[in-house]
Amino acid sequence: MSKVGIVGIGHTVFGRRSDATVQELAFEAFRDAVEDAGIDKKDIDASVIGSVPEYHKQRSLPGVVQEYLGLNPKPTWLTEVACASGSAAMRTAWMAIKAGVHDIVCVMGCQKMTELSTPEILALMGRVGEVQWESVFGTTFPGYYALFAKRHMHEFGTTRKQLLEVSIKNHFYGAKNPYALFKKEITMEKALASEEVSSPLQVYDCCANADGAACAILAKEDLAREISKKPVWLAGMACATASMSVLRRPSLTGLPSAEKAAKDAYKMAGVTAADIKVAQVHDCFSIAEVMAYEDLGFCKKGEGGKLIEDRETYVEGKIPVNVDGGLKAKGHPIGATGVSQTYEITKQLRGEAGERQVPGADIGLTHNVGGIGQYCFVQILRRD
Amino acid sequence: MSKVGIVGIGHTVFGRRSDATVQELAFEAFRDAVEDAGIDKKDIDASVIGSVPEYHKQRSLPGVVQEYLGLNPKPTWLTEVACASGSAAMRTAWMAIKAGVHDIVCVMGCQKMTELSTPEILALMGRVGEVQWESVFGTTFPGYYALFAKRHMHEFGTTRKQLLEVSIKNHFYGAKNPYALFKKEITMEKALASEEVSSPLQVYDCCANADGAACAILAKEDLAREISKKPVWLAGMACATASMSVLRRPSLTGLPSAEKAAKDAYKMAGVTAADIKVAQVHDCFSIAEVMAYEDLGFCKKGEGGKLIEDRETYVEGKIPVNVDGGLKAKGHPIGATGVSQTYEITKQLRGEAGERQVPGADIGLTHNVGGIGQYCFVQILRRD
Repeated sequence: MSKVGIVGIGHTVFGRRSDATVQELAFEAFRDAVEDAGIDKKDIDASVIGSVPEYHKQRSLPGVVQEYLGLNPKPTWLTEVACASGSAAMRTAWMAIKAGVHDIVCVMGCQKMTELSTPEILALMGRVGEVQWESVFGTTFPGYYALFAKRHMHEFGTTRKQLLEVSIKNHFYGAKNPYALFKKEITMEKALASEEVSSPLQVYDCCANADGAACAILAKEDLAREISKKPVWLAGMACATASMSVLRRPSLTGLPSAEKAAKDAYKMAGVTAADIKVAQVHDCFSIAEVMAYEDLGFCKKGEGGKLIEDRETYVEGKIPVNVDGGLKAKGHPIGATGVSQTYEITKQLRGEAGERQVPGADIGLTHNVGGIGQYCFVQILRRD
Repeated sequence: MSKVGIVGIGHTVFGRRSDATVQELAFEAFRDAVEDAGIDKKDIDASVIGSVPEYHKQRSLPGVVQEYLGLNPKPTWLTEVACASGSAAMRTAWMAIKAGVHDIVCVMGCQKMTELSTPEILALMGRVGEVQWESVFGTTFPGYYALFAKRHMHEFGTTRKQLLEVSIKNHFYGAKNPYALFKKEITMEKALASEEVSSPLQVYDCCANADGAACAILAKEDLAREISKKPVWLAGMACATASMSVLRRPSLTGLPSAEKAAKDAYKMAGVTAADIKVAQVHDCFSIAEVMAYEDLGFCKKGEGGKLIEDRETYVEGKIPVNVDGGLKAKGHPIGATGVSQTYEITKQLRGEAGERQVPGADIGLTHNVGGIGQYCFVQILRRD
């Protein structure tokens, strides 16, 4: 089977983008990705849109985006798996190329979150949990992750400060990322004083909704080598699922979907957790990043709190994680996030991450969770 | 590249299914498809959901369905391209198998349309057209198709009676389909007397929203031959797009996306329109079926009205179309429709369509339109 490479990437500023419609955001990221690849958009055979449709006043998003990017009459389709929609788009585009159906595919993660009011968004997000047995009792995302945090603290002695250290790190790097929503560092004092959202989680444990888009152009192996001086290869592309209801999960201290997807992705790429030089993980809440450390095998179960406390996930540490600011500081335009993670790892593997560069990064990982862990997509990316 | 075959199919009754949640509908179709294939559900490597998420109170549908079908921790993803979402699911599942990523994939088209009120549905559907320049002037689906009908009548002399003959045919066959929403024949007199929806279209020119699910299990060639005595092969799988806005289309009498997708699908399958023995086309409105005859090359441009008037699209005719009742009589649970079309062609190619059987059917076609033609998916299916 032919390998599939990333040959072009683009990214918008994340934030409250009242200056742009969702198709305009897509165009910003697309323009930069096409320029980065140095191709003509006529060379693109299809596009895949990663997005959650119901946040937009305009529906039928692939049609709108396809036309706005000038890609008619080429095929398009949208993939949706909640907050992992961008990674599902990456995965179906990868399949399309591996299958020999298309040679060059544009993957577009794009999302506007600010067209709806906060109550409308909360209502929608509640419906991403289990409506029949859980949402009716008022569970929303912060509530679910608060449960995970409480249990993790109870079982492993993880502390409030350890959790907030995740956010402090991510804001530290967000301040260095021109695309981040929050470009400012925070202190432990400030984090500890922030408002409670769902005990034990406070404002600074939580990521923020944002508008934004990220684009990756994929090509089959021979074309990728021809187009790009530094193609980044999709070496492991896995997806796993778990029950919607957390009541039916074996544990509340990790995501079984993440463990399984990581295992499958490592196997496909022929690597282990120890080989990963830089990772992007789905830190929708501080506890989510700690669980990801453990689910991905960056540390042993229960030692995630210590890993961040020891600063091992900073650029200088054993396994740098979310050194672009993560969802926490960069913002979380849900459909765009998986592609944004891919963007950052591509920059890192190309050695173009500037002051956030992880030295010698040759193998990277993305970990993108949908919903409350009913899906997890793990990608292993590597350079030659 | 390995061929991909359909080895199992299932279908629910379409209609107002207040007896079942969307995951229960999915289970009905899945159970029948697994039984039809004669496999164990453990053999299934992944599922793809074709659905439009925003019609359901429960979001994150692939997670819900995957769990309800007992397919965790296998991968899943949802595809959305408006009313063609089921065909997009078929196409990405086909890619997954051709790519060697998965061997057996469950394609599930499922949709509940009746959880929302009619005004809510109308508001959602309007947003599937171009929101910025068209929906604001009140265009909804019947309005768009009324424009197409008026222009077709003006340019080609197509008559009201010819359009209604499409609906009469589809009701004739719907009456013979145990899964159809409307199991009754209609007369020209009754059709002509029905209420006007958007001039010239009347109630009997329009399909109806419905709840329902349809399932197809796909397998790679060697497994397909092992599992099924009568595998049906996906020989041509095409998708094409056109501008969202009808203002930017070259003509109002056909869908450029359908013409292009048909051309690509015929080429991939190595056949021509003349080789097709039975077809399922997207008759959301009577005029849509007439345009499909022409876009697919079943007759010359402008002669679609005559084709139905001459009864050439009945089982006994030159090219039988929608002999399961079509969207018109069967109902249109949007995400399920593409898979339902696949179900019918599979039954026909297997020779299992009972009194609706087209004799000697060995090559069939499905034509599934998304929105107002911003997407069209065409599949060519064939048996050995």
